[in-house]
Amino acid sequence: MKSQELELDVAVVGGGVSGSYSAWRLQQIHGDTQNIALFEYSDRIGGRLFSINLPGLPNVVAEVGGMRYIPGADGHVLVDSLVKHLKLPSQDFPMGAPKPVYAKNNLFYLRGKRFRYRDFVEAPEKIPYDLAWSERGFGPEDLQVKVMNYVYPGFDKLSLCQQMQVSVFGKEIWKYGFWNLLYRVMSNEGYQFMKDAGGYDANVANASAVTQLPATEYKDTTEFLTLTKGFQSLPLTLAASFAKLPGQLPGKQRVHMNQRLTAISYAKDADFPYRLHFQATTTVDGSTHDSAGQSVVKARKIILAMPRRSLELIDSPFFSDPWLKDNLGSVLMQSAFKLFLAYEQPWWRSLGLVAGRSVTDLPVRQIYYMGTECEQKGGEPTLNSLLMASYNDIGTVPFWKGLEDGAPFVGHMPANLAGLLKAEPVVPRTQFTVSDEMVRVAQMQVAQVHDQVELPRPYSAVYHAWDADPYGGGWHEWKANYRIDQIICRMRRPVEKQQIHIVGEAYSYGQGWVEGALTVAESTLQDFFGLKRPAWLPKHYALLPVPTPDGCALEPGRHPACKDCADTLNEVTQFAYKGIDHGNE
Amino acid sequence: MKSQELELDVAVVGGGVSGSYSAWRLQQIHGDTQNIALFEYSDRIGGRLFSINLPGLPNVVAEVGGMRYIPGADGHVLVDSLVKHLKLPSQDFPMGAPKPVYAKNNLFYLRGKRFRYRDFVEAPEKIPYDLAWSERGFGPEDLQVKVMNYVYPGFDKLSLCQQMQVSVFGKEIWKYGFWNLLYRVMSNEGYQFMKDAGGYDANVANASAVTQLPATEYKDTTEFLTLTKGFQSLPLTLAASFAKLPGQLPGKQRVHMNQRLTAISYAKDADFPYRLHFQATTTVDGSTHDSAGQSVVKARKIILAMPRRSLELIDSPFFSDPWLKDNLGSVLMQSAFKLFLAYEQPWWRSLGLVAGRSVTDLPVRQIYYMGTECEQKGGEPTLNSLLMASYNDIGTVPFWKGLEDGAPFVGHMPANLAGLLKAEPVVPRTQFTVSDEMVRVAQMQVAQVHDQVELPRPYSAVYHAWDADPYGGGWHEWKANYRIDQIICRMRRPVEKQQIHIVGEAYSYGQGWVEGALTVAESTLQDFFGLKRPAWLPKHYALLPVPTPDGCALEPGRHPACKDCADTLNEVTQFAYKGIDHGNE
Repeated sequence: MKSQELELDVAVVGGGVSGSYSAWRLQQIHGDTQNIALFEYSDRIGGRLFSINLPGLPNVVAEVGGMRYIPGADGHVLVDSLVKHLKLPSQDFPMGAPKPVYAKNNLFYLRGKRFRYRDFVEAPEKIPYDLAWSERGFGPEDLQVKVMNYVYPGFDKLSLCQQMQVSVFGKEIWKYGFWNLLYRVMSNEGYQFMKDAGGYDANVANASAVTQLPATEYKDTTEFLTLTKGFQSLPLTLAASFAKLPGQLPGKQRVHMNQRLTAISYAKDADFPYRLHFQATTTVDGSTHDSAGQSVVKARKIILAMPRRSLELIDSPFFSDPWLKDNLGSVLMQSAFKLFLAYEQPWWRSLGLVAGRSVTDLPVRQIYYMGTECEQKGGEPTLNSLLMASYNDIGTVPFWKGLEDGAPFVGHMPANLAGLLKAEPVVPRTQFTVSDEMVRVAQMQVAQVHDQVELPRPYSAVYHAWDADPYGGGWHEWKANYRIDQIICRMRRPVEKQQIHIVGEAYSYGQGWVEGALTVAESTLQDFFGLKRPAWLPKHYALLPVPTPDGCALEPGRHPACKDCADTLNEVTQFAYKGIDHGNE
Repeated sequence: MKSQELELDVAVVGGGVSGSYSAWRLQQIHGDTQNIALFEYSDRIGGRLFSINLPGLPNVVAEVGGMRYIPGADGHVLVDSLVKHLKLPSQDFPMGAPKPVYAKNNLFYLRGKRFRYRDFVEAPEKIPYDLAWSERGFGPEDLQVKVMNYVYPGFDKLSLCQQMQVSVFGKEIWKYGFWNLLYRVMSNEGYQFMKDAGGYDANVANASAVTQLPATEYKDTTEFLTLTKGFQSLPLTLAASFAKLPGQLPGKQRVHMNQRLTAISYAKDADFPYRLHFQATTTVDGSTHDSAGQSVVKARKIILAMPRRSLELIDSPFFSDPWLKDNLGSVLMQSAFKLFLAYEQPWWRSLGLVAGRSVTDLPVRQIYYMGTECEQKGGEPTLNSLLMASYNDIGTVPFWKGLEDGAPFVGHMPANLAGLLKAEPVVPRTQFTVSDEMVRVAQMQVAQVHDQVELPRPYSAVYHAWDADPYGGGWHEWKANYRIDQIICRMRRPVEKQQIHIVGEAYSYGQGWVEGALTVAESTLQDFFGLKRPAWLPKHYALLPVPTPDGCALEPGRHPACKDCADTLNEVTQFAYKGIDHGNE
């Protein structure tokens, strides 16, 4: 940073996807008329999008953070449109074998028993949970749909505003923790089944029932896309484009890496009412620490594109505002952990496993078959293959944290890479050094899930734990008993008198997804920065969960989800029949 | 507090059991020569000892905090000796029916199946876990003993110093998380069984294996005592006695309630090097908040009798010391929750349940049958009875936190109390208001566990959640990979140049027990304040886990636990035979 103080029209803080996006959009519009800069505490643009290529796998990306999005009109419209607009290559993120097989052969290893996905419906007697009669014959996602229909038929077809008005057992649903609600509408074994077989602890955590109940996007038929060059290429492209666009401020002064925002003070300065205090940092092998040097930046407006924990680490009178103080804690920070192993061949293919995941109650929880190099478009002619040996959250994260220290995993050079890797080590250096024991224990569990005596040795590995500062967690979930519909809107400008905006995934209506981060950012730019809706974004896509055009009132006894409510009830019955047909003798 | 600054020889901060004890001991010895004062942030002496009597149950105490201790030479010698010295009446804390039945009839409701304690051994086919062959036929505590003997025969007979030297699979055991270790020596189903049937998540958490592995004090044959007037009567007696002892400072100036320590600063003052900065607080219906008024106290020495989270809330250069900074976080803060319900009759007696606990994987987790008024010594002739409807920790605490708001539970006046209660409400007001929904949901779960259609209505209730400031948790557990043996000793005076001492349960060798808190306090008084061992404490009882008189060396291949190691091995075999005999066909 230059020694004289920068004077900015907008300071965007946080180099994740919502910060990069905000800076890019503002620069496009205000190029010649405003000074806009982006600040990032580490040496990396991407935040919780973090794409790594292990050696020998230039075309199979290890996504240690967010990894996919849902295309289509009912999916992630903003992400999908933006990716197309930027002409970033995308590809299927397959959840199993090609259609019509999908994940039907994928494995489950729960309570010491192995079975396949299709067994939920075709052989429910194999499922080792003492489920209630009405719960048999469903996979965990379908069981959630069934329960949702029991609570309120077609709940997922209501707007958030309407959902907020639904009452269960005499209490509004947004006042329920999801676990508290599920306890009252299903057996405890049904709950344990949804937790264990669903793969994510977060999906049945005691967060707000109003957002958890209709969240069934992991069902077998959901189609996902991923970015061919990695999801991180989205924020990287946005940040690079931001720096190159025409503008007042020289491109080099627009993106400031290794600057940690420590404080925001109010200045008696009508033009530039804010002072941002930055501490210089340095990043060595992926780890970022404070270094020498502090600086101050003046700004007219601020966008804090940061998650809850990062916000909590900032010192400012801004955060003393009573409303903000009460609502900054309205979201849970959910820890998550991902470990990737690279093998010289895709040993799982011989077991009938192609893509998607296997699920277990062992601490690895979810195993994803990520693909083989030679099968990729333009891939090299090797069998090098990537396994996400573990994707787990919350309850099992401490297991893996306990294996963090000790001798590092060394790996070995695969024959097909001999001489091709120069100075690079075969195991990449990141913030987290994979220990030999972590790899060994993960291998033992992967072998157990697949009922193998011994597995081929992995030649490389990388992991990332999302539980520490400045992220706090891998994603966020709304707590029970908060007026989500109001907080989402207001958090974008939490203190009326101040031009300080909070954007990102944390306080969004799409938590855990890039779509959540970007819808908050885009709606903030439109509502508070005067930007027009971009031409590449479909006109009728709602960025915020606002009242539907028909109004938001939910009249007692009247079902707003469809014109003829009989349609919804017939759907509900047919859905349940699927389970009853097969599962319940 | 008087307006002129107090000048103290010793400032003891924290009115829990270790602070009350420290002040009492110091005042006894230094009565006429030193100024000693005790400071407490709330209006209550006791800390995590908190005894409540619900109406109609003057002789059956609801212990919402610590509730029992283990007498005898292998148990809590300091607590036991102190209770006798203070002549506090004690009584059995029964864990089941009278001998020889013990808890053998107590219920388990796990994975939708009901069975009794005796079935672990007598009918292992009823246990709904897919245990390994070698794991069948044991209750959860005995299974832990068996696993301990597999890891190192007679591990519990070693001193901590010797335990620290034991290696498992080539790595010292203190570097293992307990879950990480158990994963490698038992099946995942065995682990889940220990977690579910053991009743406490904390007992199999991924904390230090060196302290978790030999912790099997919950086995059926352990005998516990409790204080007849409540465990809180111990710190209350100590604090009252401290205030009444002969001394320089008038008794009224010795105990300062509703004073929150905000900061400790260093003063250039050879006589009184410390300034303690206090914020006045006020307590209304059990909730403590800052009020108007600040004051400063001068001190020569400080005893911080506080848990980790309370320490973290103090602002002081003291906590910038590198060693202290690294080791303050060496313990996990484990959340815990207790809910008591009062009934007009002990309905559980008709089911063959007398005392002790039933265990379930429902969110209530542990149900304790606490007793009936007319059966108590000197009890009133009523059938009013107390049930601890839930005692749960860590994973299930969020379930109950989700039920905290909403309409309060009102209760009803039992016929036998009509006209006896004056202005008092039948449901006591504490920091936590029991909601009607919390009682209803707990009742549903208690009914499920006992296979009842409907339970009698409880007439009163009280609960306490130990998860928030200033406690951080109900108790602490050492993290893996810390040199516990060294930290326990050094934490008592963490910064060499400073006369500031940290005592209490958090950094002790008896975490979760009053014994841990008091052994650290007493050893600190002896080692840093020159106090002699009290006459009432048995001479050979070791306050700290120091090297045994025989020295601490653990020679490879030589077993130090007994003179003839064959004894230990025979014991190990006989213990295992118990399970093999009954459980394994």
